[in-house]
Amino acid sequence: MPGWLRNYRRALLPGDIGAGIIVALLMVPQGMAYAIVAGLPPIAGLYASILPPLAYALFGTSMTQSVGPQAITALLVAGVLAPLALPASPEYVLLAARLALLTGLILFACGLLRLGFLVNYLSQPVMSGFTNGAVLLIAAGQVPSLLGLNAGQVQPASAATGLGCILLLILARKHLDAGLCRLGISRPLAEALARTAPILVLLGTALLLALPGPADLGIPLVGEVPTGLPPIGIHLAGGPWRELFVPALLLGFIVFLQSMSAAQALARKRHERLVADRELLGLGAANLAGALSGGFPVAGSISRSAISHEAGANTPLASMVASLLLAALLVSPTGWLAMLPLPALAATIIVAVTGMFEWSSVRDAWRYDRSEAAAHIVTLVAVVSLGAERGIVLGIVLSLALLIWRASHPPIVEVGRRPGGEYFRSAERQNVERLPRVLMLRIDQGLFFGNAAAVTDHVEQALRRRPELQHIVLLLSAVNDIDLTAAQALIGLNRTLGLQGVKLHLTEAKAPVLDRLGRTPLLQELGGQVFHRAVQAFDYLATGGD
Amino acid sequence: MPGWLRNYRRALLPGDIGAGIIVALLMVPQGMAYAIVAGLPPIAGLYASILPPLAYALFGTSMTQSVGPQAITALLVAGVLAPLALPASPEYVLLAARLALLTGLILFACGLLRLGFLVNYLSQPVMSGFTNGAVLLIAAGQVPSLLGLNAGQVQPASAATGLGCILLLILARKHLDAGLCRLGISRPLAEALARTAPILVLLGTALLLALPGPADLGIPLVGEVPTGLPPIGIHLAGGPWRELFVPALLLGFIVFLQSMSAAQALARKRHERLVADRELLGLGAANLAGALSGGFPVAGSISRSAISHEAGANTPLASMVASLLLAALLVSPTGWLAMLPLPALAATIIVAVTGMFEWSSVRDAWRYDRSEAAAHIVTLVAVVSLGAERGIVLGIVLSLALLIWRASHPPIVEVGRRPGGEYFRSAERQNVERLPRVLMLRIDQGLFFGNAAAVTDHVEQALRRRPELQHIVLLLSAVNDIDLTAAQALIGLNRTLGLQGVKLHLTEAKAPVLDRLGRTPLLQELGGQVFHRAVQAFDYLATGGD
Repeated sequence: MPGWLRNYRRALLPGDIGAGIIVALLMVPQGMAYAIVAGLPPIAGLYASILPPLAYALFGTSMTQSVGPQAITALLVAGVLAPLALPASPEYVLLAARLALLTGLILFACGLLRLGFLVNYLSQPVMSGFTNGAVLLIAAGQVPSLLGLNAGQVQPASAATGLGCILLLILARKHLDAGLCRLGISRPLAEALARTAPILVLLGTALLLALPGPADLGIPLVGEVPTGLPPIGIHLAGGPWRELFVPALLLGFIVFLQSMSAAQALARKRHERLVADRELLGLGAANLAGALSGGFPVAGSISRSAISHEAGANTPLASMVASLLLAALLVSPTGWLAMLPLPALAATIIVAVTGMFEWSSVRDAWRYDRSEAAAHIVTLVAVVSLGAERGIVLGIVLSLALLIWRASHPPIVEVGRRPGGEYFRSAERQNVERLPRVLMLRIDQGLFFGNAAAVTDHVEQALRRRPELQHIVLLLSAVNDIDLTAAQALIGLNRTLGLQGVKLHLTEAKAPVLDRLGRTPLLQELGGQVFHRAVQAFDYLATGGD
Repeated sequence: MPGWLRNYRRALLPGDIGAGIIVALLMVPQGMAYAIVAGLPPIAGLYASILPPLAYALFGTSMTQSVGPQAITALLVAGVLAPLALPASPEYVLLAARLALLTGLILFACGLLRLGFLVNYLSQPVMSGFTNGAVLLIAAGQVPSLLGLNAGQVQPASAATGLGCILLLILARKHLDAGLCRLGISRPLAEALARTAPILVLLGTALLLALPGPADLGIPLVGEVPTGLPPIGIHLAGGPWRELFVPALLLGFIVFLQSMSAAQALARKRHERLVADRELLGLGAANLAGALSGGFPVAGSISRSAISHEAGANTPLASMVASLLLAALLVSPTGWLAMLPLPALAATIIVAVTGMFEWSSVRDAWRYDRSEAAAHIVTLVAVVSLGAERGIVLGIVLSLALLIWRASHPPIVEVGRRPGGEYFRSAERQNVERLPRVLMLRIDQGLFFGNAAAVTDHVEQALRRRPELQHIVLLLSAVNDIDLTAAQALIGLNRTLGLQGVKLHLTEAKAPVLDRLGRTPLLQELGGQVFHRAVQAFDYLATGGD
């Protein structure tokens, strides 16, 4: 039993129930809309809103995370499946469930393997560039539906409905909470209720269009939505599986990153502690539950999670209340869902996702450093021009390349002696003594295959600049380990220096490092000496060496 | 014109001609043998020995590198092409040339992009594990040919020929140089001549088997070898290209690594300087030349390069002499090449490649550290069980994972004050003062997205261990840069600490780092203070803070 349930107190109940109702009201349009973004029938979005939050609640550590259909995940699903099957066909629905199954297995396995630290391997500008690019793609993808485009022709009635809904939704976002406050509703509740504007606008539009006149305008509607709970099970035999594996890997990574960034900001605000490995388990379980109940890949939604928090959610019970309400909705008559107009649904998607566009992240990156802004923009442009999957792969590759570059550039500092003292500090500072034919370098990182060449290159370049050098002293005080490749690089450096009549000395090496180096020919071949303390090397070389 | 040619002196000529003759004598059996390993007709190996060394000599910086057919490259070619075409078929020959073309283009492009530093991104144990595994695969692949295996049956005459040749070659390697010395030949020349044993053994066996009796034994021969210079050109239209791209990328990496390790040891011995970027250009040109003259992917050969050096080569002119001799061989009657027995050729391959097996690298790795030995053995086993390409990919992935792990673990040191002084050093050492409720951490590396979480985790763990802490002081003296993601992590850390009543202080920050941090909310939000010098922070906190 999860901790929050074991320690549940009755006082938490009203907040959870209230938030659950509001989340459910939000889930209906969002679930259907994101299913459409993913290329699926709208009902799949409702199915994906029922079991996944329950499964997440068993493992996850966020108290407010709302797991279910999510815009960017939906966009990736469409990108992966569109080349494999006809959108909304039974085969497409099956593939979406399989994709969720693989994504769930991968996430759950990563949780068991404690790979939660992977959340740190994407730079912020890349991640926000990806999100912003995906937002633009999603919004652009909804324009035809918004305008009722058909063979290049705008259908005026659809366009008027869609654009009118956008206007209403923007007005509601800006003024509805203030209006509700004036009606005497408390500020937090007013803000939360204001966020249910999408369902209100949808219902209002549907009612209006059901009137005899507008009903003849031919505005496209959602169409029949099956009644009843989601079918349980998944068809495993035959069909493509291999093509889904790599996309599922990528999707798992994105689901994890998107969900963590949704949960982290709220956890900090609420003084709660997120455990990344447990989040992986929770998201894995949610996707498995979605796969087995007619859904598609799900993730934590930033907007719904924030609204759940604002509406007073205390524990995952809020999500569970929402799940129950949605289940109740599906077993009651669903005819009214069929009447929802598609242009209005497109309007809710566009308004929802453009709210996710992070202007501030572009601005912050630009202000901080042009190269950070460049990383953001390159990723954004790649997502918009190459598609979300290729765009994020490019972003990951860029991030990895940067990581490798960093790892291969260890901090190497020329040091000098504090006059009269025993201490050595950066020779960049004033007031340090250096010996004329001696270069003393402090290496501030363990040496291994990836950075060993940087050390030998550094020494060789210094020798070309200062051909008078006769002694190189490496201060290894901060070197906790040296791998075999690096030890061999030092052997090579010593030989190269020997040929030029330059002596290599080692000092301040820790005992285990020196012990290991003793198992290679380095210490026997060393042109110079091994000194215990740097000051001994300095004194020895100051008196002219041997 | 390359530097070596501009400064050529007549005194260098005898050494180059002598070495050229010996390399040519070695090229004939090796070229044919490695073509067979690659699944190609033997003539392709001779073609690949003519133009590639000339093209390499235009760009390369090694004076003794012998570029041409090479065992491990040949093995990879076979691994890549075997699933795509029937070995030795015209289609297979075309694909081998296209693979060389792509490999050459990739290597040349990498040279132009100055990617030579990539040679540092594979650890020694992984590289030697790969080489040893590949050696075992190549030797095992020659056993059927050595024994004349046919439908599971050993052909006794073939087996006797093959095993006899192995015995002769081993005896020649051990004793031929001493014997030649006793005949009055100088030691270096005797050693070089002794290395031509393969061609002598092949010719001797061929002559013996041409006698009336043995000729009826049915021992398989090389068979017809076309006369004339290699055909120039490559058929670009149609056929598979896409399948070759990723293998060419991998092959280029391996060609580069193998060639560099061949050249580096010799360059050090000869006091010469290799330039990795120029080597990429040279190897790229060599592969392009091979592709356009009926060849296949080529690389620098450790064994031939070493022999060229021992035989007195002074410049790449030695390789050019060898090319000319091989060209002369091809325009003269080649009937005798057809008479070379296949079991004898298999024997030369087996003896040559087992000589490449590096026992010492396994032993050195084991002695140095068990984990280094494990990396070697895992790569070796992967190559032998999964094949050379998958094995090396696994090795590269392992190396990269290690690199990422390293990059994400920055050196973080708790420091204390030297009594009475202004200096701060590791608190592990004796004789440093620490304040009871203060943790001072020095971060010895630039902060970026990949390692920022390690810093915040470190602080949070310290707080759990020492809940009495009220001040965290970060010494940023060694932090040359902080990226936006790391700056945001510090903002998050400051907020988290603030909620626990702990103050975060910064000190010793360099001016540009502080300037950048000033463009984020960090400095305004900071719970503690920014001190110029660590000693100021210490004094301030020693007197109880504010």
